[in-house]
Amino acid sequence: MYEELRKKVREGNQRLVQLGLVNLTFGNLSAIDCEVIGIKPSGVDYSLLKDEDIVVLNKNGELINGNKKPSLDTFTHLELYNSFNGIGAVIHTHSKYATCFAQAKKPITCLGTTHADHFNGDIPITRDLTDEEITHDYEKNTGKVIVETFNKQEINPLEIPACLVANHGPFVWGRTIEEAIENAVILELISKMNLHTLDLNPLAKINPILRKAHYERKHGKNAYYGQV
Amino acid sequence: MYEELRKKVREGNQRLVQLGLVNLTFGNLSAIDCEVIGIKPSGVDYSLLKDEDIVVLNKNGELINGNKKPSLDTFTHLELYNSFNGIGAVIHTHSKYATCFAQAKKPITCLGTTHADHFNGDIPITRDLTDEEITHDYEKNTGKVIVETFNKQEINPLEIPACLVANHGPFVWGRTIEEAIENAVILELISKMNLHTLDLNPLAKINPILRKAHYERKHGKNAYYGQV
Amino acid sequence: MYEELRKKVREGNQRLVQLGLVNLTFGNLSAIDCEVIGIKPSGVDYSLLKDEDIVVLNKNGELINGNKKPSLDTFTHLELYNSFNGIGAVIHTHSKYATCFAQAKKPITCLGTTHADHFNGDIPITRDLTDEEITHDYEKNTGKVIVETFNKQEINPLEIPACLVANHGPFVWGRTIEEAIENAVILELISKMNLHTLDLNPLAKINPILRKAHYERKHGKNAYYGQV
Amino acid sequence: MYEELRKKVREGNQRLVQLGLVNLTFGNLSAIDCEVIGIKPSGVDYSLLKDEDIVVLNKNGELINGNKKPSLDTFTHLELYNSFNGIGAVIHTHSKYATCFAQAKKPITCLGTTHADHFNGDIPITRDLTDEEITHDYEKNTGKVIVETFNKQEINPLEIPACLVANHGPFVWGRTIEEAIENAVILELISKMNLHTLDLNPLAKINPILRKAHYERKHGKNAYYGQV
Repeated sequence: MYEELRKKVREGNQRLVQLGLVNLTFGNLSAIDCEVIGIKPSGVDYSLLKDEDIVVLNKNGELINGNKKPSLDTFTHLELYNSFNGIGAVIHTHSKYATCFAQAKKPITCLGTTHADHFNGDIPITRDLTDEEITHDYEKNTGKVIVETFNKQEINPLEIPACLVANHGPFVWGRTIEEAIENAVILELISKMNLHTLDLNPLAKINPILRKAHYERKHGKNAYYGQV
Repeated sequence: MYEELRKKVREGNQRLVQLGLVNLTFGNLSAIDCEVIGIKPSGVDYSLLKDEDIVVLNKNGELINGNKKPSLDTFTHLELYNSFNGIGAVIHTHSKYATCFAQAKKPITCLGTTHADHFNGDIPITRDLTDEEITHDYEKNTGKVIVETFNKQEINPLEIPACLVANHGPFVWGRTIEEAIENAVILELISKMNLHTLDLNPLAKINPILRKAHYERKHGKNAYYGQV
Repeated sequence: MYEELRKKVREGNQRLVQLGLVNLTFGNLSAIDCEVIGIKPSGVDYSLLKDEDIVVLNKNGELINGNKKPSLDTFTHLELYNSFNGIGAVIHTHSKYATCFAQAKKPITCLGTTHADHFNGDIPITRDLTDEEITHDYEKNTGKVIVETFNKQEINPLEIPACLVANHGPFVWGRTIEEAIENAVILELISKMNLHTLDLNPLAKINPILRKAHYERKHGKNAYYGQV
Repeated sequence: MYEELRKKVREGNQRLVQLGLVNLTFGNLSAIDCEVIGIKPSGVDYSLLKDEDIVVLNKNGELINGNKKPSLDTFTHLELYNSFNGIGAVIHTHSKYATCFAQAKKPITCLGTTHADHFNGDIPITRDLTDEEITHDYEKNTGKVIVETFNKQEINPLEIPACLVANHGPFVWGRTIEEAIENAVILELISKMNLHTLDLNPLAKINPILRKAHYERKHGKNAYYGQV
């Protein structure tokens, strides 16, 4: 059962390794299809992952099918599916450069068109979790603080499909697995470029009109990018 | 029709991926042959690119042959072909280190002979586009501001075949596709080395006589490099 | 004799090369089994290493079996086996980023959950060896100063299985060869991320409660990570 | 004629590419055998290099055998063979990190045992060439300024077999081709580590007694490294 979902989730997880976004057993990818979520099992080597290892859950986190324990971060993923309408896949990595910004507790500000072509604004960083939020329901609270960040800053999660969790690393999502993976790749790329840009010019910034124009030509109502 | 041009342009575009100069569908390469331009189609995956996907245009941007939409940056390429005599190919990438300088709005100053062997002076950075230039004919204006930069600074585009567009990334060109690709490779290499050289010594510079001597021994009237 | 130990030690040493943790003939891995230690021979090319080249010693460093000279660093390894109960393998590398911290004489402070998932606190740096310690029994004294560092700072070597030796590089260990290798990989990863995090924010730090929670969910009494 | 010398020099040059030490046609390797020197031809693609392309010269730079023009840097190599007794091979690269130090006009100071294991002290940087030295016999003068640097600082070229030429890049040598290549690899490695070590601690330094002890245990009279 759930063969197609499981196959896609297994392939998506292994793609993260090929793309250099995860090391060892760090990181996890999930996808949702008709209210049913498939997610990586906890602590399983990516190279040994089989379709049947993918854990199938409902949006409350109740097991539907599978004989493995799901990723520790499952409850973070669930918060995102429950709060962000329209997302179809969630990825958590410790990809190196994005994680540096998370550890430095700095947002990834938009400094160029590479960023603007994909994300409609800065990639936000969450506030610190409180001691209470860490010691009780930590993973669920990690999801909650991401959602809080987007609500407070009035960010549309489909236009900025990524968030840095303070001292932890990036969570990234998308309408589909492919889109989520692409967003994770671009996030890592712009993180590295931002780091070095700030080395060269700590005051670097972009004209918001240029930023908007680049986002719109790919994703706006009158987008003219691609073959459609 | 235009089989040879298309084949070369398709191969050139795919070479950019092999060389690590582009990610995903970022970037594009075009070439001109007898006033006819072949350019990458918009948003097509490099690995799926076929000869027949290459769009064939005249220097006014009118379609001559092809059933795909050309790259969004086509009008930037056209400005360069129309203004810079003698260039045969144009490349746009978001190659990482060169893009950092574009985002930092800093020229790539010549700090050593690796740079001087290929480029006869600093790689310039454009001024910001005005809001009006961004919102109307953005791609054409990107080309115009590159040309303006070269005219104002009295730079010979065949001697410094590359320009950084502010907050965007590099445009690079050459007499041939091979030369343009080589210039794009060297540009990325010297960008990385400049970044780290400036880390070590923010005041680094080169004796202009040494710079000139290195350029001349490869490209001057009395060049003595190579087997000719 | 000692075929299994030798095979594992030979494979472990070659794994360090595949993982990019050692260059040329730098570095060495040993393992202990029933009070018998197998270690890489001195100055032998990793690609030419054969099972029978592995030198077999007792915990006093006396030869049990083998016809090669053991690694110069053998007496450092022995100090660690003799002082740190429960460790089964020791690795010495000059892995690039960890070595930078060793050369800068700075501990690798915990700045995020990638670190906290594996190491229960900062990776310490030894004091300088005295001139006397360098000129007499240098390798043994290198082991002693590692042990001294752990004793003085009351660090449990099974919870923080790595130490930077000042101006030298990392020594890493684990209960098994696999664990020691994983620790060496993570150490290099967090070293690179720390360097860049400190670039972005020289004051970066982590809430100790978050740090502890992450370590505990993987390694504590009530760990809930993985499939067990 | 000179088949063996040519084969070794051709292989050595191509090894530089495999090791990532050269890009495009930058760089060159030569070797000397019985007063006869084989060197890479100028501007020839490494992948197309054949044994018969290697140019054979005497120590005055007079052609002995070959139908290609030798590397532009030939007269630099010759100065080194004529001044540094006992060297058997010379390599010039623009390897990235070593070149950054050359461009920054900073020596590579010894900061750790990775450096000390191979080089008996800091890697020196030449003074700037004068305008006159650049415009007349530039390549020969490049060799002369390397030799001057070693003489003035009383450095033994067999103990520190590398020099940075200001604003240019490294020249490296060794008793054999293999040794020279190893030195070029280590030079690039320690350059990268020095850059990042200085990021972490601009005042980093090493106890000279530790530095000496490491050099001596591999290269001194009483060396105890390796299997001899």
